[in-house]
Amino acid sequence: MTDKPTLARLAQQLGAELRLAPGADAEQPVTGLSTLESADSGQVSFLASANYRRFLADTRACGVLVSEDLADECPVSALVVANPYHAFACATAIFDAAPRPAPGVHPAATVHPDAEVDPSASIAAGAVIEAFARIGAGAQVGANCVVGEGSEIGAGTRLYPGAIVYHGCAVGRDCIIHSQAVIGADGFGFAPYQRQWVKIHQLGGVEIGDEVEIGACSCIDRGALGNTVIGRGVKIDNQVQIAHNVRIGDYSAMAACSAVAGSAVIGKHCTLAGGVGVVGHVTVADGTHITARTLVTKSIDSAGSYSSGTPFSESRSWRRNAVRYGQLDQMARRLKELERRLEDLPHRDGTED
Amino acid sequence: MTDKPTLARLAQQLGAELRLAPGADAEQPVTGLSTLESADSGQVSFLASANYRRFLADTRACGVLVSEDLADECPVSALVVANPYHAFACATAIFDAAPRPAPGVHPAATVHPDAEVDPSASIAAGAVIEAFARIGAGAQVGANCVVGEGSEIGAGTRLYPGAIVYHGCAVGRDCIIHSQAVIGADGFGFAPYQRQWVKIHQLGGVEIGDEVEIGACSCIDRGALGNTVIGRGVKIDNQVQIAHNVRIGDYSAMAACSAVAGSAVIGKHCTLAGGVGVVGHVTVADGTHITARTLVTKSIDSAGSYSSGTPFSESRSWRRNAVRYGQLDQMARRLKELERRLEDLPHRDGTED
Amino acid sequence: MTDKPTLARLAQQLGAELRLAPGADAEQPVTGLSTLESADSGQVSFLASANYRRFLADTRACGVLVSEDLADECPVSALVVANPYHAFACATAIFDAAPRPAPGVHPAATVHPDAEVDPSASIAAGAVIEAFARIGAGAQVGANCVVGEGSEIGAGTRLYPGAIVYHGCAVGRDCIIHSQAVIGADGFGFAPYQRQWVKIHQLGGVEIGDEVEIGACSCIDRGALGNTVIGRGVKIDNQVQIAHNVRIGDYSAMAACSAVAGSAVIGKHCTLAGGVGVVGHVTVADGTHITARTLVTKSIDSAGSYSSGTPFSESRSWRRNAVRYGQLDQMARRLKELERRLEDLPHRDGTED
Repeated sequence: MTDKPTLARLAQQLGAELRLAPGADAEQPVTGLSTLESADSGQVSFLASANYRRFLADTRACGVLVSEDLADECPVSALVVANPYHAFACATAIFDAAPRPAPGVHPAATVHPDAEVDPSASIAAGAVIEAFARIGAGAQVGANCVVGEGSEIGAGTRLYPGAIVYHGCAVGRDCIIHSQAVIGADGFGFAPYQRQWVKIHQLGGVEIGDEVEIGACSCIDRGALGNTVIGRGVKIDNQVQIAHNVRIGDYSAMAACSAVAGSAVIGKHCTLAGGVGVVGHVTVADGTHITARTLVTKSIDSAGSYSSGTPFSESRSWRRNAVRYGQLDQMARRLKELERRLEDLPHRDGTED
Repeated sequence: MTDKPTLARLAQQLGAELRLAPGADAEQPVTGLSTLESADSGQVSFLASANYRRFLADTRACGVLVSEDLADECPVSALVVANPYHAFACATAIFDAAPRPAPGVHPAATVHPDAEVDPSASIAAGAVIEAFARIGAGAQVGANCVVGEGSEIGAGTRLYPGAIVYHGCAVGRDCIIHSQAVIGADGFGFAPYQRQWVKIHQLGGVEIGDEVEIGACSCIDRGALGNTVIGRGVKIDNQVQIAHNVRIGDYSAMAACSAVAGSAVIGKHCTLAGGVGVVGHVTVADGTHITARTLVTKSIDSAGSYSSGTPFSESRSWRRNAVRYGQLDQMARRLKELERRLEDLPHRDGTED
Repeated sequence: MTDKPTLARLAQQLGAELRLAPGADAEQPVTGLSTLESADSGQVSFLASANYRRFLADTRACGVLVSEDLADECPVSALVVANPYHAFACATAIFDAAPRPAPGVHPAATVHPDAEVDPSASIAAGAVIEAFARIGAGAQVGANCVVGEGSEIGAGTRLYPGAIVYHGCAVGRDCIIHSQAVIGADGFGFAPYQRQWVKIHQLGGVEIGDEVEIGACSCIDRGALGNTVIGRGVKIDNQVQIAHNVRIGDYSAMAACSAVAGSAVIGKHCTLAGGVGVVGHVTVADGTHITARTLVTKSIDSAGSYSSGTPFSESRSWRRNAVRYGQLDQMARRLKELERRLEDLPHRDGTED
């Protein structure tokens, strides 16, 4: 972001129709974005869900991104768009104040002479680029990042400080990798032998498609044989664990603390809520949605929403119910026995079935 | 810690009344702290819970932090205090041998000329302090830490090696942030659009109060609009995930692997045990306690203890019971049907209800 | 790995009996390893499980590691061994192409003058070795790693980039510690006092045995009093949390996202699947196996397989069943009441019990 756009300019950038409120000035500078409730008179807001409609009447925003059907309710200038949430997302790019480092290699970075760094890329202080690594045009490698031998960082990709890419991995274009993420650590593979563990060296790598985002402290392990593959446009939150030889289909999204075990295949356009687990070697169909903390223990063949777990309650009543969980099978058998015995009883009217 | 205190000096520092055992020497140096069971004759121990009372008679410690009511049982010198566990905590500060780096900027650190570093602060090798960052008096920034543009680290705060603070975040005074913690990475926000994800740039920051501790590999995401806020005196263990725009009330504590989803509000003086999850946009009342691995899926309006999950057992019996979980609703209906049918039966005495 | 071995040489290295297929050449170079399905004619594969036997007939591999009883089915050259999976693990070491840094201290590393670094060790760019630390023969400290004051890294141990060892910790010989792992951060210990938390400084350290592997972003906290201890040959995956004063017995293995709370003791030769939790102060018997996502809430006295959790299903049916979980105790009481009432009914034949 450089200068603040005016209301008119912002509408133009977002492809919105500007319907000025009485007395409003299309040339008013917009200072930022905020929610309907919190916006001040310099800010623009948005109405993307009926849940927030009740806040529209009292907003102090100077403009609201709104759909045609609700534009008439807007007490201030309306920026009418087909999809207000998408327009809001586009607006956040305009107001993003994250620092953009200048191209070039910082004197406190260490770039191996056999690495290739595009002159338009930026390599920050403390970053280490190992031999035969390639850093694409406009890529940004943050402070204290490490890019391993022979790995490739695509054009326009940003590595935040401390992100680490092992040797022999490929990250696509226009990706974002957050701090402390680890791409290409060894998968967890050992052969049991004489009651000890013999390491299976992990000979594969990691391939990450274009426009992927990977959160802080997330790990994408390298393949044992062949690669771990993250599809195009996949979005991965913080503290997510992707094991060796997993494949994540294009445009799937995984919220924080999810984990996918070895060789599992997640389809395209799937969404995994926070804390979801997927066991190894299963397949999840395209378009599947999995709710928070579910453990997927078998393949899912058809798209849908899947869940596991128990509801929470006050600990006292939870304990009473939880202890019964260990009696469930016995309860089911007793229930069946009761049904059998009742079946055997003479009916009230004296007849039998 | 510099010199070892004597028994008398330690008692004085802790505000304890020293009741010397027969033949004991108040000027004996105390070499360290240990449990009642493990202490040697140079060490001081403590009795903070009735569970450990059985170890008191045989302790080899040269002194025991003990409450008045148990002081008579102490076979060695007693350091009588009102709250032995609190006194023990105070004693650990006296015996802490963690290295204290000297003030100043290590020659292998990189401090941007527009950053402000207090002369009494310590910046270790490999640390990177970006433009307009401010490092307060007596603060310690460990090796290979990164403090982003415009961020502020309060006086007396310690960042352990590799901790990362993004741009535009504020950390209070006397905080401790452990290695690989990430403060201010982007919240996980995307608008779905044409079966792809459009990034919602995260325009807010992170505000962390005074005396907060944050564990290794924990992540506090920056807000989407407005800040993520961690209250005063909050204690966060390792591998905890705090999403964008979460608010954690003063003096709450969260054990390892807990996760709080976006915009949730945790009250003051709450305790979350290990692995607790809280879904987005809910509110948890002040003083709430949540047991290990519970998933909180709705707001909690009144303080208390809350739980979810199932008990563990041998896998064979667990499998038998778990399969019944998928039949629970059917079982409940069958139970109701049995009750109805039994109601319809003539009573044993031949009457009806 | 330097040169590609021939089939004959590989058989010799693995102690395999080479049974050449008709027309095969023992001097053919082997280019790598692959699965039976994916191997090309330059690669060697393995048959370690009956599940994959169906792929044997059509493999294009130039050789297959196979047991005596299946050697006759092998359509290509057989490398006959007693334990094909173990032989495959040994083969991966031969084909491992991970870069091996040259001995010596990189000019961009920072080694304190009071540290001891063996001349055969390798210290990469950006690494920081603090005072009185000792780095053993042939050890490899990766880029931007930090080894704290007085800590010891055993001979032959490899720290991948960004791994951090706090002060006063000891890592054995021939260990592997992956990126962003944190050894020796403070355990989570606070004394409640006047509705605030008083820090219990963590005075112990961490002891890690020989041949231990620790995954990316995993944390092993230092002890409060005394050490946290990881036994010989233990294998720990990514994002695992080991709290203060935990003891893990020799040759146990813990998959990703597992967590063990304070002072718990895990026996030898245990396996914890992904996401397992163990609460504090419990003991788990040698040889115990715990299935994915189980929460162990009590001590386990005898080896076996243990589980907790609920099966997953479509969300709609899951919701119906989950709501019944909160009624389980009531259901159990109603079931008992039905049994009692049925007992009171006259039997079909008119008699009573």
